[in-house]
Amino acid sequence: MSESSEKVYPAPSVRRLPIYLSLLRKMRDQGVEGISSTRIAEQLGLTGIQVRKDLAMTGIVGRPKVGHSIHELIEHIERFLGWDVQQDAILIGVGHLGTALLGYKGFKQENLNIVATFDNSPDKIGKKILGRPVYAMKDFRKFMRGKGISLAILTVPVQFAQETAEIMVKAGIRGIWNFAPIQLQVSDEIIVENVSLSSSLALLTQKLSHQS
Amino acid sequence: MSESSEKVYPAPSVRRLPIYLSLLRKMRDQGVEGISSTRIAEQLGLTGIQVRKDLAMTGIVGRPKVGHSIHELIEHIERFLGWDVQQDAILIGVGHLGTALLGYKGFKQENLNIVATFDNSPDKIGKKILGRPVYAMKDFRKFMRGKGISLAILTVPVQFAQETAEIMVKAGIRGIWNFAPIQLQVSDEIIVENVSLSSSLALLTQKLSHQS
Repeated sequence: MSESSEKVYPAPSVRRLPIYLSLLRKMRDQGVEGISSTRIAEQLGLTGIQVRKDLAMTGIVGRPKVGHSIHELIEHIERFLGWDVQQDAILIGVGHLGTALLGYKGFKQENLNIVATFDNSPDKIGKKILGRPVYAMKDFRKFMRGKGISLAILTVPVQFAQETAEIMVKAGIRGIWNFAPIQLQVSDEIIVENVSLSSSLALLTQKLSHQS
Repeated sequence: MSESSEKVYPAPSVRRLPIYLSLLRKMRDQGVEGISSTRIAEQLGLTGIQVRKDLAMTGIVGRPKVGHSIHELIEHIERFLGWDVQQDAILIGVGHLGTALLGYKGFKQENLNIVATFDNSPDKIGKKILGRPVYAMKDFRKFMRGKGISLAILTVPVQFAQETAEIMVKAGIRGIWNFAPIQLQVSDEIIVENVSLSSSLALLTQKLSHQS
């Protein structure tokens, strides 16, 4: 692993990249070929400096007065995010939330491909849900062998989240997208990204209650 | 509206408050009565300065050497977030994601009470889903009259999100928890909090692809 590959980028900047991507793809589809960071900033209500800093992370170099080629920008952002190649993932816990994610159309443009799902419910095992097979959790390790899948989406009820995470890591998962409201205890080299509904709700209700 | 009520607090700090709350409640339930910000920081892998700054937002004053009363801390955080009183909300779009949120147990401790849901599907209208009535979207305005509900959860498909947001705002909604992958165009005094799956996934896949 090289020095640069371990670099930590500021989370707010990385979080903005999909927003740029969505704007750039829309413009590309409209036949636009080039754009300046100033114009991107205007369109998204950001500052030019923010946009230039964010885009610089991806390694792209803008040309003064000319701006960026939209095609190149898209390519750089996708490569930086790892969205330039299809990423296979498995999903564990096919309840309502898991099913919602299976049906989420946005993953296509993020090149995320949920290949299989796992659950403990006898009602679901052996069936297909939104086109994906549901396997028994006890077969997880066997399924994973030799597949090279490193990404998992965790949508089990909170009381099963920790033990499930441990099973996942033992079977070779390196990145966990965690939707359970719990801080998972896993070793440092495992990347965990938490989707925290409480934190998001906190931002909303705090503003709302201080407004009224 | 007073000066202070319009104050904007740093989002990362507000996002951390539910995490403190969850730790503090657990300790309270174990019979612990007091805690220092240094100890909170250790427990959560944060710095003492961060914790002190975050807690200071809520207006609580710690006593040197003694620390905080857990009971008071919980009270201050809950009040700051608007979680000290029950907040009624409606949910629009009872698909898989909407249903997942209806079943989400975490909302109880956040004092969020989803009183009713709305949808356009004839299959759902008039039924109850996880205990909540499903009404027709066309009856939204009539339903809202005089109820004083200001919070709505938006879980409709992306192509209906903007028009639904407009209907919501006209009917008195002031805060929108938006799960559709779209930047809603609403007037400035409406508070919108986006749950962006793309941004969250970006953080995960970026780290994962730069690691391997």
